[in-house]
Parts: sequence; C-alpha cells; structure tokens
Amino acid sequence: MSQFKSVALIGTGRVAHQLGAALKENNVGIASVFGRNAKEAEVLAAKLNTQVIADLSSVIHADLILLTVSDDAVAEVSAQLNPNNSGLVAHTSGAVPLQAIDEKNRRAVFYPLQSFSMDKQIVWENVPFCLEAESDKDLNGLGQLAERLSERIFILSSEQRKSLHLAAVFANNFANLMFELSEELLEKAEIDRSILHPLILETANKILMQPAGISQTGPAARGDRKTIATHRELLGNDNSYRVIYDLLTNEIYDRAHEQKL
Amino acid sequence: MSQFKSVALIGTGRVAHQLGAALKENNVGIASVFGRNAKEAEVLAAKLNTQVIADLSSVIHADLILLTVSDDAVAEVSAQLNPNNSGLVAHTSGAVPLQAIDEKNRRAVFYPLQSFSMDKQIVWENVPFCLEAESDKDLNGLGQLAERLSERIFILSSEQRKSLHLAAVFANNFANLMFELSEELLEKAEIDRSILHPLILETANKILMQPAGISQTGPAARGDRKTIATHRELLGNDNSYRVIYDLLTNEIYDRAHEQKL
Repeated sequence: MSQFKSVALIGTGRVAHQLGAALKENNVGIASVFGRNAKEAEVLAAKLNTQVIADLSSVIHADLILLTVSDDAVAEVSAQLNPNNSGLVAHTSGAVPLQAIDEKNRRAVFYPLQSFSMDKQIVWENVPFCLEAESDKDLNGLGQLAERLSERIFILSSEQRKSLHLAAVFANNFANLMFELSEELLEKAEIDRSILHPLILETANKILMQPAGISQTGPAARGDRKTIATHRELLGNDNSYRVIYDLLTNEIYDRAHEQKL
Repeated sequence: MSQFKSVALIGTGRVAHQLGAALKENNVGIASVFGRNAKEAEVLAAKLNTQVIADLSSVIHADLILLTVSDDAVAEVSAQLNPNNSGLVAHTSGAVPLQAIDEKNRRAVFYPLQSFSMDKQIVWENVPFCLEAESDKDLNGLGQLAERLSERIFILSSEQRKSLHLAAVFANNFANLMFELSEELLEKAEIDRSILHPLILETANKILMQPAGISQTGPAARGDRKTIATHRELLGNDNSYRVIYDLLTNEIYDRAHEQKL
C-alpha cells in the first residue's frame, strides 16, 4: 500500500483529466482540484467528485500534490504553494528537472510517458511511469502508486528524463511529421491516405521485435540510386519535402554503408 | 472466379515466398518457379510443392507470370521470356512503371504494399494491392485474384504508384529512421529502448483516427522555444542528430504557425 492515499491536482488540462480519472478509478482519493480558470476547475472537480480550492496559498490536505501545469509554470506555481503543506509535490513533465520545483517543498517527479488526448481512452497498464524523488521513501511510495496504474515503472534522473524527452520528440513528433508528409504526397496523387496505414502500423510493430536500425529497408538502405533519382525528380527542387528527403536519404545511406557522419 | 487459375513465379526472394505461399493457401495453382540461383529455386519449389523451370526462354504454362525480381531486373527478365507464353506478365514492384515490362508481353502490375520479411507472418487481408493492366479484362481478373487475399484493392496508374512509393519512403523508411535515432539517444542515456514503444504504437494508431497533421504535438508545434533550446544544447553541434532536429523542428514550427516554406 502506497503512503500516498490522497492526491491534490494542480492544473486542469489533459494530464489532470486523464491521470485524475485513472487514480480515482484505482481507489486513490482525489482531495481537491486547483485551476487558474475557475470554470475549468469546477468541471474537473465535478468529474472527479471532489472540491475546488480557490487559492494556491491555502494549506492543501493531501499526501501528494501533483503539478500538471505547463512546463514553464512549474517553478512559479510551486513557489506559491503554502510551506505548511505536508504532501509531496511532484510535477508530471518530461522536460522539467526536479529542481525546477521550488525548494521549500518536498520534491518529486511523476511523469507518465504518453501522448494524451482529452477524450481518447488510455491503456494505462502499458504507460511507462518515470519517477524521481529526493528520498528513497518517497520514491518507493511513488512506485507503489504508479504500480496501481501501470506495469512499467522506470526510475530516471532529471538528466535521463531530459534525454528521454528528446528521444520522444524523434519517435513521436518527427515520425508523425513523416506520416503527415506522406499523406500530403498521397493527396497530391489523388490516392486515399488510408492506403499507407497497414505499412505504418507494421513499421511501428516491428520495433517490438528488434531495434529499428535492423529493420531498415528501402532505396537508401539498398543504395538504389536509380529509385532515389526518380524520387528526387518527382519532388522537384527548392521545397521542404525535397530538403527533408535528401537529408534523411543520405543519413540512411551512410548508416547502411557504415560511413557515419 | 478469376481468370488466373495458375501462377508462375519468377524470382525467389521474400515476395515470392510470401505471395507464393498466400496464393497456394487460397487455392491458386503455383505452376512453376524460376530463379537464377538454382538452389534457392528448389527450396521455394519444394515449399510450394511445384516444379522448377530451368530456363526463362521456356514456354511457361501459367495464366499469370509474376515477376518478383528486383526493380532493375524487370526489363531484362521480361525481355527474356518466351513470346509464346499465353499468360499475363505482371511485376510486383512499387517503383517500376508498367512500361518497364518488355512490350512483347501482355503487361500488368500486381503490387502488394507491405514490408515483407522472410519469416514474419503477413496479415494479408489488410495488405493493399495496387493493380494496373493494359486491358479492363486483365484488370478485372487481377482484382478477383487480389480479393482472394485482401479486402483492400486499389487501381493505380504507374504515375500514381510512383508517388505512392515515394510516400511510403517517408512513412516507413524515414519514420523508422526517427525510431532508430530515438533508440540511440536512449542508449546514450542508459535507458531501455522499450520505454518508447507504447508512445510509438500510439503515434501510429492515431493516424487511423485522423490525419497526422491534426495529431501533431510537442515543443515545435507549441512554439516552446525554451524546450527546443534545451534539446539543442543536449544534442550539441555538428552532428547528424542536430541537423535533423533543426530541420524537422523548423518544419513542424512553420506548419503549426502557418508560414509554410
């Protein structure tokens, strides 16, 4: 049983909605909700069947105070918290170091690594939780709390989490940009974008089997200069598709032919 | 019932193995196998319980002759086929126009859009088949044949297929490169690469719900310059991670802020 039996939520965005609902479902008490926008705080509090606190400087009666605010607000919001709070103060961000939380608090990080939407159902048991705390006791408590939701718990330093966040930008934002560019190329050729969905799902599923580098295929990996020339001609010059195509094709080519940049 | 009741396979690679097995399972006769490497041809013929033909210039007794050879070999191999073949000659490549098949043949394209491995089981019903032929009769016949394997049939011109192949490079090879770079960043930070797998699967699954551009998130889409600066510092200068990071970050930023390049 975790030492954290009650949680106060600061912030009313997607993480507060999704994480709040998941904690409540797993019998963790939601002690209160705070949001700068009073109406949004009321909506979230009603959903979680809890109370709104009107002022950050109130003493918050909770074992764990979760800062689900924007990265930039972690320092400022945590500085406004009442120093008589007995709860652990944890932010939920990938990009923010533990030390960004004002030092008058007992500090920690409780970061669920997933892309959250307001409405889409989260399969929590697969969501990696990345934890950090200033004491082993708090770290253990957070671990026990995270285990209620997920099977995948990672203890990472702020430095490691920074690298993880950067890696997630490549794996999520940049890969998604590649999907976006491919959909636009299909649209120009009047082909339904769904035609690539099985290939995209297969590309993602393959990383469960083996490292991505081993799965690489295509004209650049093969060194198929004729197909690359055809692609370049089709793309034309002086546009972002072409610049991206050339850079990534060269990178894959160099890797496959072991002449790393 | 398709007019194509028997198929001859030219080539002994992954497509020949996977497509040959799938056709056989769906009660299409595999009339013969030809491969430049006699031993590999014997292996495939044994697997498909059929005969090897020793010479491309033999008359091939099959309704459909499938060229599963490399892109560059389509022209040469099709020129060597006996002109008395009565079968339709179709290649299985995304990047090669129909016209690359020597014009003495009745020509077509039978292109399954998927990334094939030698061993991994293919879920054929989801694989898009892209068809092209010189007559409606052959196109209909290929459609009926493809419908035995898949629910997703597309009739595309050689020009459209060229665009599709290019789009697939972005969606598959380039996205996979992003996964590879992310795994390397994790390795440097001593974090298990599996930590990003749920996020990667979620990123891929989201494209089933809505176009990728709508799903875009992260520091570039938000215009979060502070996080971008942190990432750049972490990557350092003068390396391919950094060059790729800057180019793709700028592209996402420009798109989100409607100042397209």
